[in-house]
Amino acid sequence: MNGAESLLDTLTNNGVEVCFTNPGTSEMHMVAAMGKSEGMRSILCLFEGVCSGAADGYGRIANKPACTLFHLGPGLSNASANIHNARKAGSPIINLVGDHATYHKKYDAPLNSDVIGLAGPVSHWVRSVRDAASLPGDAADAIRAANVMPGQISTLIVPADCAWNESVDPVAAQPMPKMPKVGDEAVKTAAALLTNGKRTIFLMSKFGVNENCVELADRISQATGAEVYCDTFNRVLQRGEGRCRIQRLGYFAEQATEQIKNAEQLILVGTRAPVGFFAYPNQVSEFYPEGSTLHTLASASEDPEDALQKLADELDAMKFTPEKIRLKKPGLASGNLSPRTIGHAFAEFLPADAIVVDEGGTCGGHCFNLSETAEPHDWLGITGGSIGFGLPSALGASVAGQGRKTVCISGDGGAMYTIQSLWTMARENLDICVVIMANRKYQILQVELSRVGAQSMNPRTLDMLDLSNPDLDFVGMSRGMGVPATRANTADEFNRQFESAMNETGPRVIEAMLDK
Amino acid sequence: MNGAESLLDTLTNNGVEVCFTNPGTSEMHMVAAMGKSEGMRSILCLFEGVCSGAADGYGRIANKPACTLFHLGPGLSNASANIHNARKAGSPIINLVGDHATYHKKYDAPLNSDVIGLAGPVSHWVRSVRDAASLPGDAADAIRAANVMPGQISTLIVPADCAWNESVDPVAAQPMPKMPKVGDEAVKTAAALLTNGKRTIFLMSKFGVNENCVELADRISQATGAEVYCDTFNRVLQRGEGRCRIQRLGYFAEQATEQIKNAEQLILVGTRAPVGFFAYPNQVSEFYPEGSTLHTLASASEDPEDALQKLADELDAMKFTPEKIRLKKPGLASGNLSPRTIGHAFAEFLPADAIVVDEGGTCGGHCFNLSETAEPHDWLGITGGSIGFGLPSALGASVAGQGRKTVCISGDGGAMYTIQSLWTMARENLDICVVIMANRKYQILQVELSRVGAQSMNPRTLDMLDLSNPDLDFVGMSRGMGVPATRANTADEFNRQFESAMNETGPRVIEAMLDK
Repeated sequence: MNGAESLLDTLTNNGVEVCFTNPGTSEMHMVAAMGKSEGMRSILCLFEGVCSGAADGYGRIANKPACTLFHLGPGLSNASANIHNARKAGSPIINLVGDHATYHKKYDAPLNSDVIGLAGPVSHWVRSVRDAASLPGDAADAIRAANVMPGQISTLIVPADCAWNESVDPVAAQPMPKMPKVGDEAVKTAAALLTNGKRTIFLMSKFGVNENCVELADRISQATGAEVYCDTFNRVLQRGEGRCRIQRLGYFAEQATEQIKNAEQLILVGTRAPVGFFAYPNQVSEFYPEGSTLHTLASASEDPEDALQKLADELDAMKFTPEKIRLKKPGLASGNLSPRTIGHAFAEFLPADAIVVDEGGTCGGHCFNLSETAEPHDWLGITGGSIGFGLPSALGASVAGQGRKTVCISGDGGAMYTIQSLWTMARENLDICVVIMANRKYQILQVELSRVGAQSMNPRTLDMLDLSNPDLDFVGMSRGMGVPATRANTADEFNRQFESAMNETGPRVIEAMLDK
Repeated sequence: MNGAESLLDTLTNNGVEVCFTNPGTSEMHMVAAMGKSEGMRSILCLFEGVCSGAADGYGRIANKPACTLFHLGPGLSNASANIHNARKAGSPIINLVGDHATYHKKYDAPLNSDVIGLAGPVSHWVRSVRDAASLPGDAADAIRAANVMPGQISTLIVPADCAWNESVDPVAAQPMPKMPKVGDEAVKTAAALLTNGKRTIFLMSKFGVNENCVELADRISQATGAEVYCDTFNRVLQRGEGRCRIQRLGYFAEQATEQIKNAEQLILVGTRAPVGFFAYPNQVSEFYPEGSTLHTLASASEDPEDALQKLADELDAMKFTPEKIRLKKPGLASGNLSPRTIGHAFAEFLPADAIVVDEGGTCGGHCFNLSETAEPHDWLGITGGSIGFGLPSALGASVAGQGRKTVCISGDGGAMYTIQSLWTMARENLDICVVIMANRKYQILQVELSRVGAQSMNPRTLDMLDLSNPDLDFVGMSRGMGVPATRANTADEFNRQFESAMNETGPRVIEAMLDK
């Protein structure tokens, strides 16, 4: 058994069953081993950033890692931005990066680069394999590292000869790391804060916004009057009918600081103190009131449900009945097509148990707000802020969701980053509806240009943020990659197209033409 | 004058006049300054890998750097693979990477990452600006570093507050580094080798394959019997009518080792000893005969023309008349469309002074071979081996070429990597014809799969290298990005379409449907 074959068996023995691939020559033995493996589903993507974004979406929904397969340093580089998003989400991924044979590296051939150096900034764990015999053991370490909660990025660099040389037996199924529980002190401190009479805010994210955690927070809120918020962008936010309400912190400083301006104490669960996505001239970076008390009940790597349960018990909050959201659809809107009218149709037709991937930028807010009382669904946010996340993550989330309807809300600018995702959606016949909000500009940047005080809104400057010359035709591009697509110019057209997309299965693009 | 404005003036004062941009919020003051600058042409790209590939092509043709503008670490990551290609080409680029304000960095906001760590592996020079007053001086250093011959990658990281705070005067035009000349010893050693009666091969690349250098090598060859070769992939190879002949080293070991199997001595100009692009089981990595003498006449950073001139003088070779290629077109082929018939049309219709960007993979060889005696043209190769190079580099080369017809030969797999390039070609109305050789598979990988001895050509394995499910429609995608496109199914159709593309101006895609 060669190294590649032992690697594959080690992966499948340990529950890794999907690989998002874009291989090259140095990965051919891994490709061959994958072709022989019964337990590994290989999903070809036309660009590595699609692979890594898909692995992010997969990890968030499956709660276990997929692997990726990349071609040396440049392959990893192409994947890197969406690995960044996954790293910020706490989404688990095992990157397999082929490299030159150990003895060939010294020649510095054209594709040679410092792969370890490239991997470091986006990975929690990096190792370059020394020889074929080490490969299964290294793979086992990579899998364990990826499974450290809430999820980590492992990057295993596999020189070609380590894959093709004779190796040793694969590593059998191994126990995965458990999420550590918080100590009593953290719970007692939180309980003391919640009973000292001061105004308290819960800020939660990562596993802290799972259904059960939000329900516990709701009970605690009823017992103590604390308000419950989540981060702007979350790994998976479970919401809609049957879930408890949670407020989302605004993106802009003026929104967020207003929301929590009265807070005297912040209790953090699976997140850190709220700060600006960006800095702005003459604006504060820290969004919480100066002098407020910060207390971490559970860090992102600690078990939030256990911590909240202990806190609820301590506060005698379990006697309260959680206030669960009742289904209330907003009805359809008509007239000109706008983010608001799209939000109405979205909330109206979103089916139960859907997965929503949000890269809607300036256009996604209405969909979020209007669907608070829609059918129950999972909401995946752009945790690392790097656009090009939406389409690939929807792809991976759909694979993990095994039949769950997936909706991707995307801006036009972001959609173009990893537009190649559409081809893999068609190839795998995934049940994904991509709604592209086409405003034909980087609207967020036109907003930001004025916000940062860069007072130069002259035509040349605005042209740098404009996508209308020439107009992008997403219907044509989608069909060119095998995905059926339609264009909606009015609210009524969108309503009909989105309804039919929700009632059919398979990949689908709707280009929503917004007024400029 | 704020930092961004002083940065822009420093750039334009020092001959940097084109910026390939994909900015975000942290770059808004640089965008505003660019909008006010008269001397900087800003070219918007829909993905950072397009920007960096364009800067590579621009640098090769303009022989001076363009700058790029990227959004924090993820923006740089997306650009990184094509920066790798440029680094291997010795192509000059100045990357401007926005970052969080210096005081905001510590909060580790979603888009925060180790930008210096990401930049290191792909850059020759990296600096993160400390304050607004340092920015113009740092920019001047970055420009000088990029201008170190044959060309280097400078990455200047600009925290947002360094751009928006008050700065100092811009740096005026400064002298750029000169290319050092080789010492007499290197010339004398080469002359001694060339007169000792042993079989000698010149291997040349980088500036060593400029028209003048190849002409000098031709004279030396006539004087001494030495043979003249170039690397497989070159920065800019000047060839066609009026130039002297140079043989290209084959890609595969069995080709290259056969070509130079009789060599006893290798004289290197602007390159290093030839080695395998990849390693293969039981094949040597070094392509030159064991025990042959290696001598570097001029390294990639040393002046090759001066060295070859001195050597020609030393050998009294200037008395020989260079044997220049006479125009001889191969005539058109008909019948089924194939890389060979495409090569005929390509060589027949390629206009004088064209720029050719080659990412043809397995399909590009015929175009190269058949155009040896075509009109004079420049040939740009995929120096770093990272696909996704072709379309963006053609874009940048066309901008630098200021009206020179540019032809990009691309495989279908490679074209999908940075397909967003088409939009910018349309936006800037660039005179580029993209020929996409559509064989609907990663053919090079199906070849490599058997070559590396990974004996598993089963359907599941081959499916991982297949692009036919679903078929990609490049005509639809191109039109969707505003570029006119046609499909050629026969040699005659291709002949007509390519001829008309060569006679018209503006962007154009021809999808050449090859037999599978």
